[in-house]
Amino acid sequence: MPSVMNKNSTIGINTTTGGAVAAEGFAAAGIACGVRNSGRRDLGLLFSDRPCATAAVFTRNTVKGAPLVVTKEAVEAGDVRAVVVNSGNANAATGEQGLSDAREMQALAAEALRVEAGEVAVASTGVIGVYLPMDRISEGIKGAAGVLGPDGAPFAEAILTTDTRTKEVAVRVEIGERTVTVGGTAKGSGMIHPNMGTMLAFMTTDAAVEPECLQETLSGATERTFNRVTVDGDTSPSDMALLMANGAAGNEALTLDHPDYPVFAGAVETVARGLAKEIARDGEGATRLVEVVVEGAKDEPSAAALAKSVVGSSLVKAAVFGEDANWGRVLVAMGYAGVTFDPDEVELFFGPVKVFSGGEPVPHEEAEANAALARGEVGITVRMGEGDASATAWGCDLTYEYVEINGSYRT
Amino acid sequence: MPSVMNKNSTIGINTTTGGAVAAEGFAAAGIACGVRNSGRRDLGLLFSDRPCATAAVFTRNTVKGAPLVVTKEAVEAGDVRAVVVNSGNANAATGEQGLSDAREMQALAAEALRVEAGEVAVASTGVIGVYLPMDRISEGIKGAAGVLGPDGAPFAEAILTTDTRTKEVAVRVEIGERTVTVGGTAKGSGMIHPNMGTMLAFMTTDAAVEPECLQETLSGATERTFNRVTVDGDTSPSDMALLMANGAAGNEALTLDHPDYPVFAGAVETVARGLAKEIARDGEGATRLVEVVVEGAKDEPSAAALAKSVVGSSLVKAAVFGEDANWGRVLVAMGYAGVTFDPDEVELFFGPVKVFSGGEPVPHEEAEANAALARGEVGITVRMGEGDASATAWGCDLTYEYVEINGSYRT
Repeated sequence: MPSVMNKNSTIGINTTTGGAVAAEGFAAAGIACGVRNSGRRDLGLLFSDRPCATAAVFTRNTVKGAPLVVTKEAVEAGDVRAVVVNSGNANAATGEQGLSDAREMQALAAEALRVEAGEVAVASTGVIGVYLPMDRISEGIKGAAGVLGPDGAPFAEAILTTDTRTKEVAVRVEIGERTVTVGGTAKGSGMIHPNMGTMLAFMTTDAAVEPECLQETLSGATERTFNRVTVDGDTSPSDMALLMANGAAGNEALTLDHPDYPVFAGAVETVARGLAKEIARDGEGATRLVEVVVEGAKDEPSAAALAKSVVGSSLVKAAVFGEDANWGRVLVAMGYAGVTFDPDEVELFFGPVKVFSGGEPVPHEEAEANAALARGEVGITVRMGEGDASATAWGCDLTYEYVEINGSYRT
Repeated sequence: MPSVMNKNSTIGINTTTGGAVAAEGFAAAGIACGVRNSGRRDLGLLFSDRPCATAAVFTRNTVKGAPLVVTKEAVEAGDVRAVVVNSGNANAATGEQGLSDAREMQALAAEALRVEAGEVAVASTGVIGVYLPMDRISEGIKGAAGVLGPDGAPFAEAILTTDTRTKEVAVRVEIGERTVTVGGTAKGSGMIHPNMGTMLAFMTTDAAVEPECLQETLSGATERTFNRVTVDGDTSPSDMALLMANGAAGNEALTLDHPDYPVFAGAVETVARGLAKEIARDGEGATRLVEVVVEGAKDEPSAAALAKSVVGSSLVKAAVFGEDANWGRVLVAMGYAGVTFDPDEVELFFGPVKVFSGGEPVPHEEAEANAALARGEVGITVRMGEGDASATAWGCDLTYEYVEINGSYRT
């Protein structure tokens, strides 16, 4: 990816509202159809009023949910312009029946939206190993299609599981003489991990983009954003990120070597990063967003592996929760990241407080280091002497509430 | 390793008492010297009255504590016959000062025991990044040397950190016409993970064993026992397992092709397995021992990777705590183990209750499956259709108390 994809790429990127329907030509709906017992919204539709180029990335878990199989087929066969999604039930580990149900969801949505079945992506999130209540899903799809509109909030709500809030990000950039909007909404709270743990992200843009270029944009952004988030180390069979581009902005179609491509890629990565951080911040039971920055690594994969190992360490996460600046745990988590490095060349910071350097503790005010962990956004910085590569990963603290949520998720 | 090293190898193996001093010629001591503020025992000595062959395995963490460096040198240079260990402070991430302190511990113990410095192994466990209080350690070593004796319990206590109880196992076997004893004591409670997270195991035997044979015995047993335990996924810089053989039993020295070797290897693996299970059972905050057995895998590394992934999953661990038979989490944890397999060929059991087979849920009494998780020892069995290999891994549930312990370890 071009080097413009760093923090400076936010120049010229203006935030806006509307999430997945911020871009021209997209509409959404979210209703309660009774998959969940709570009466919360649990069925959503997202729809483009014209055909789209579509890119997708999927979980790497060997166990794949039925909806993912169906959506992958659709994206590989052509391009999709609609998404039907339910929460409360992942339709995973449900065998032939589950696959048949996912295909039926796709067909029902296509019928309600008057498009081809192959133009509809299907997603499900929630408990594993239970068959979908297809009668309710069927009624829900018809109901949702009847209330499609320009408000993205009901859709953003309908895709949530243990999330405590919706996650929507949208930005505008200038491409040629056209204003292009990129937006998205996501869910993900537990089972979040590098490689897409229980995460759904639906991103849209009104830019015109060549399909191959769109896929490369999504893959690159995912690697540096969604795949740098961890909540509990588990990954899920159902996760996917979609990026639909409908061309409504009327720009010259973007390719990788188009002069304006870096602006577009920067916008997509900004949206993906914003959603990824919201997912980490809303991790199950989380009270704090933790951002780990590794600098001076020998290459980006090493930097990413180190950052992800630190942010994923149960002991680091518990220390953040306890506001206990136990930096030894950071060093130890680096030590089992599978990356060779010289600990004597490592500097560790909690917020602005340097706590370790040259292989030894750095004298510091413990209260200041602890205070850096008491903020809503906790920064842990690692500086190494191995090279020029850097990477950032995001996670959250480990709390009593995480245990409570996951000790009784189904009951 | 010989195939006799399965469950049948316990035939002819008789349990006994005494832990690390059960074998002839070993003595131990454990006292409180003030490294820990609590007044608990924190300094231990283990000593053979005659020279030993010694084998050792060490943490694979890139960050290694100073004691580990010193002990590795000693074991590589010759054989050690004594161990000095403190709890409360890991002497890790302490730079040159830490290394100098570890060497001083070694020298002080050698002086007190009237052996060469190179005959003494050094171990430290506890908080990272704090210098040892060498004045107290020095007094402690002298004090401990004065009370060396046949009771292993004070030593077993002195090496504990957040452990709630001592861990001692010993067995007797017949080799030729001699009775040989193998025993050991271990600590380890948090930061336990495959590849030796914060674990110390000191094993002894009065068998005569050739050094190379001893090392292979320890390495093989470690792979199938200590490296199959996980508490929280973190590993530590300080971990080691030692096996000292002093030959006091008077048997013909064992080699790998000695006809009685399998009996000895079975005894060592039985002791190591017993200690490993005690470590898992006493995981930080744990209320239950979880044993995951994978059968029908294509090879042993695959079986082990799958078993460790399941037993290490935060979601599986929280489900066990909640007595919620959420078997989908087991399948998902298998899915991200890095092993390719066909989920449709998997059968899952919680205790005796089959919950998943042929890609679909198996109708079962939920209460019975939940009850299988409510036992003190929880068994999860995975049967695959890939081959004949099997492996077992051990862990524990994830509880509120884990968060409490690790949110405030230093305070």
